[in-house]
Amino acid sequence: MGSVLNEVVAANAAYADSFADKAKLQLPPARRFAILTCMDARLDPAKYAGLSEGDAHVIRNAGGRASDDAIRSLVISYKLLGTREWFVIHHTDCGMLLFTDDTMADLLDKSLETATIDEQGWHDHGHGPGSVHGHFVKWLTIKDLADSVVEDVARIRSHPLVQRDIPIYG
Amino acid sequence: MGSVLNEVVAANAAYADSFADKAKLQLPPARRFAILTCMDARLDPAKYAGLSEGDAHVIRNAGGRASDDAIRSLVISYKLLGTREWFVIHHTDCGMLLFTDDTMADLLDKSLETATIDEQGWHDHGHGPGSVHGHFVKWLTIKDLADSVVEDVARIRSHPLVQRDIPIYG
Repeated sequence: MGSVLNEVVAANAAYADSFADKAKLQLPPARRFAILTCMDARLDPAKYAGLSEGDAHVIRNAGGRASDDAIRSLVISYKLLGTREWFVIHHTDCGMLLFTDDTMADLLDKSLETATIDEQGWHDHGHGPGSVHGHFVKWLTIKDLADSVVEDVARIRSHPLVQRDIPIYG
Repeated sequence: MGSVLNEVVAANAAYADSFADKAKLQLPPARRFAILTCMDARLDPAKYAGLSEGDAHVIRNAGGRASDDAIRSLVISYKLLGTREWFVIHHTDCGMLLFTDDTMADLLDKSLETATIDEQGWHDHGHGPGSVHGHFVKWLTIKDLADSVVEDVARIRSHPLVQRDIPIYG
């Protein structure tokens, strides 16, 4: 386990050494936009959206969903840090398509350890105790990617703290 | 406004063209860890933590805080996608140090448009209507960066859906 920690610390040290010329970047995003997208390991928003350090806010969670917390971040981004446009970006083959709230809650009921998936569905090999708490969480799973983007843009658009004329692209 | 949209779409198209060799990356993160960090435009987690596409989940919000939604994402990351270690990374000069819940709520009360900050504090130049809704949101602001990391690691650690022995580095 310690090896990943060491790798991350070493990468950070190497990067910090090269950061001197970027230390004068301003806090408000230079290109004045924010992206809400998925935490998926295969996505690198800096690469897929062409961002350099200082360009844009990047908000990420499981699915890239418009949760209350994502909207908290977007409102701070706009109100205090001057972004002017928001992008909501979901992606094909998203992990959030692979389960439902009930699946997740039932798996967590059995154990908190990692489950695996095969053609028959999810299997929990962990040893308990699990927790019923998973039944009380909205996991924000996705059935259809086109629907989820439309739904999330609509949820942001109708939020009482979102200025009416902000362009939101899904 | 449309120019940023065009730039992002063009960057995505160029990136997609170069992605063919990455299309076979697996959904579960190859290096089996997740990072929770801030949305700050100046941070590029792929660079500061030395990540390639497919390596690790990256969860980002305003402050890199352990909100319920961040914990939702971490639990999915561990339970269904097999990450084994989590990193909570806050950063110096974070925008979340510049205001309090009351500041934000009062600013949103006046208008939903962008405010500016100078030596005298925040100023709202926007035209109403604002919204009282901001008084009912926990903005998860930060007073002290060392405290906020400790607090967030503790919040994750004590969550009922978090397996007890996951290494969490702050």
